[in-house]
Amino acid sequence: MTQRKLGRGVAIVGAGMSQFGAFPEKASRDLFVEGFQEMRDSVDKGLDPGDIEALYIGNYSSDLFERQGHTAPIMADWVGLTPRPATRIEDACASSGVALRQGILAVASGLYDVVLVGGIEKMSNLPTAQVTDTLATAGDALYEIPAGFTFPGFYAAMASAYMARYGATPEALMRVGIKNHDNGALNPKAQFNSSIAQIMAAKQASAARKGRPVPQWADEMAFLHDERANPSIAWPLRLFDCSPISDGAAALLLVSQEIARRFTDDPLHITGSGQASDRALHDRPDLTTIGAARMAGQAAYRMAGVEPQDIKIAEVHDCFTIAEILATEDLGFFEPGQGHVAVEEGLTARNGLKPVNTSGGLKAKGHPVGASGAGQVVEIWKQMRGQAGARQVARDVDLALTHNVGGTGQTCVVHIFERR
Amino acid sequence: MTQRKLGRGVAIVGAGMSQFGAFPEKASRDLFVEGFQEMRDSVDKGLDPGDIEALYIGNYSSDLFERQGHTAPIMADWVGLTPRPATRIEDACASSGVALRQGILAVASGLYDVVLVGGIEKMSNLPTAQVTDTLATAGDALYEIPAGFTFPGFYAAMASAYMARYGATPEALMRVGIKNHDNGALNPKAQFNSSIAQIMAAKQASAARKGRPVPQWADEMAFLHDERANPSIAWPLRLFDCSPISDGAAALLLVSQEIARRFTDDPLHITGSGQASDRALHDRPDLTTIGAARMAGQAAYRMAGVEPQDIKIAEVHDCFTIAEILATEDLGFFEPGQGHVAVEEGLTARNGLKPVNTSGGLKAKGHPVGASGAGQVVEIWKQMRGQAGARQVARDVDLALTHNVGGTGQTCVVHIFERR
Repeated sequence: MTQRKLGRGVAIVGAGMSQFGAFPEKASRDLFVEGFQEMRDSVDKGLDPGDIEALYIGNYSSDLFERQGHTAPIMADWVGLTPRPATRIEDACASSGVALRQGILAVASGLYDVVLVGGIEKMSNLPTAQVTDTLATAGDALYEIPAGFTFPGFYAAMASAYMARYGATPEALMRVGIKNHDNGALNPKAQFNSSIAQIMAAKQASAARKGRPVPQWADEMAFLHDERANPSIAWPLRLFDCSPISDGAAALLLVSQEIARRFTDDPLHITGSGQASDRALHDRPDLTTIGAARMAGQAAYRMAGVEPQDIKIAEVHDCFTIAEILATEDLGFFEPGQGHVAVEEGLTARNGLKPVNTSGGLKAKGHPVGASGAGQVVEIWKQMRGQAGARQVARDVDLALTHNVGGTGQTCVVHIFERR
Repeated sequence: MTQRKLGRGVAIVGAGMSQFGAFPEKASRDLFVEGFQEMRDSVDKGLDPGDIEALYIGNYSSDLFERQGHTAPIMADWVGLTPRPATRIEDACASSGVALRQGILAVASGLYDVVLVGGIEKMSNLPTAQVTDTLATAGDALYEIPAGFTFPGFYAAMASAYMARYGATPEALMRVGIKNHDNGALNPKAQFNSSIAQIMAAKQASAARKGRPVPQWADEMAFLHDERANPSIAWPLRLFDCSPISDGAAALLLVSQEIARRFTDDPLHITGSGQASDRALHDRPDLTTIGAARMAGQAAYRMAGVEPQDIKIAEVHDCFTIAEILATEDLGFFEPGQGHVAVEEGLTARNGLKPVNTSGGLKAKGHPVGASGAGQVVEIWKQMRGQAGARQVARDVDLALTHNVGGTGQTCVVHIFERR
């Protein structure tokens, strides 16, 4: 795809998120206020909300989750932005990654200097089976859903195809989960703020408290192989291969590069943005790669003028563990068929060669679907500025990447961030 | 609101729409293909779809209407655009007007030269009461819907406030319906391709055929006052004050001004774009005006450097008859409180001083909510190029305007088009 340069540069000068988790007492708007407040507090030289000229909010389906459509002006109202233009962007679980892209284009167009990009989802209202059915609407309602597919099934099909082609094992998938929980344990905003080892200990303590037999596992891998502790969802995917049902919000402040230093001496420059679409999964020739991710990645690398090996850290879309492995290949971090080896060798660990999902990823941080793409950028913001606390990577992060997937890969959007 | 100039100019070089109506056998994607084909055929020098670089699709809630989320890549696929970026824009009934604005910003950003903007909605799947409940999600699900409001009720509240303040009568509302049906009767794409007089004659013929007493009405106004022919929905609004439940799609081809003449020697230049948000209706100080419409209109006029009196024709958002009267005031065509006088005096008739809704408007052309904003532009395209057939306005249309409202006015987007 041809892709030209932007009319002018765009930088991020603030980023924040709500707690991710299950919050029965909160609506989307409450979560967005929480994310907005952390964003506002993150702006080094302060933010007058009156300077914000427009809002782009990513949201998958408040329609189905909360029976609330037309959610953008509500979000604008609740953070005091009325009468600024407020627009909802939807591309399933890539909604707020795509909202970020629209915010970038809006600033680059010259119309706005200061734009708020957000993401929200409130999923925990519905019973689990209804959440699964609601998420299935991101597949093809005419050609896939009537055949009984839901998202664990879609990604299980990709996982089994990948394992068959490349000889990967379920243990490689499990390694993704262990790594991401290790990271989530160090992220106070994460829904699962605990490692697999901590979860094992908690289960043992709970059994002891209740006077039940205390389960024993040799190690995390033994725990993850225990069908009771980690039941099968859709072979080869088990419970700990799946991201949770989450509520959450995130907010990013975008400004034109020329005025970035009014807000901070340490802006993040968005140097690459790529987006691509694909057919529904039933209509693709290959289940072991997500074509839209490859194309979006290539477009972003080309715009930024960098190569995959230049990227220091990445937040990728691990809605299921297999999705992280595919992402690391589609983005060119590893050769096709080598992503599973890389995770088993620890290359994507927090202090590995190519740290992936230092936030805990969607798996441990949580996956409020419409907020996940913007949430990824919050982690990049913190890591690049050295504000990631206990999970801060050791190296100096001058180049980072986010990769956000919608549905089974009918949408993918990739962004590249540079700190100068 | 501050609003700067766009980085570069944008023009429309193609526009088309599907038939509007109720099509039980069609899905959104089928309707979009139909609209896309008319758009493609409208490009004077021909269009290679491979030149299209991105798709922005307005859609209110395929989630609730068709249980199909993530609709943008499906639309891209069905018109052959995979793997181009495909993004859904949602702002209730303003979705495709706002999608047009995003398309404009995307071209102005420098990233794309050729962008497809579309709108779709497939509403007739659901029973009427469920459609009403689905549309109500465009209100505030926490503060309005639990009180029993649906959209006829919202606009009835505005109508009664307006009548109380300005002494307007139900007859003024009826005049909007008569005018728009007169226009729709000349629009072969309209859902109601018949005038009120034709509808009266059809009802009489049907009664005669069935051997029933043939109803007699002195004139159209007598018909509209007949509670059986035109029952009350929410006082003062009756059936013929309400736009119908519709299926439909529309498609617009946007290009950067510099390359417009590759596609046509007669492009429409988009010289003004304004968008604003507002609080939900329960939280507004005045029900007799839509503040977001006033602000969006002012922003669009300022960008285009024109005044309300310069506009030759307008397509405005008459989801209910009262909404058209408010629109003509909010846009500055008439003073506050004079919109109802203007329609009674025929000023907004097809060959009046300021023709409004020559297409038949949402009332007669139909209101597939996510497609309506783009559909308005199709009418402007045809009128400005002298291709509107029997409903072509007599005057030379060098400046025209569209006005697209989301919900009760939490969103409004206005565009101005110039033919040079």
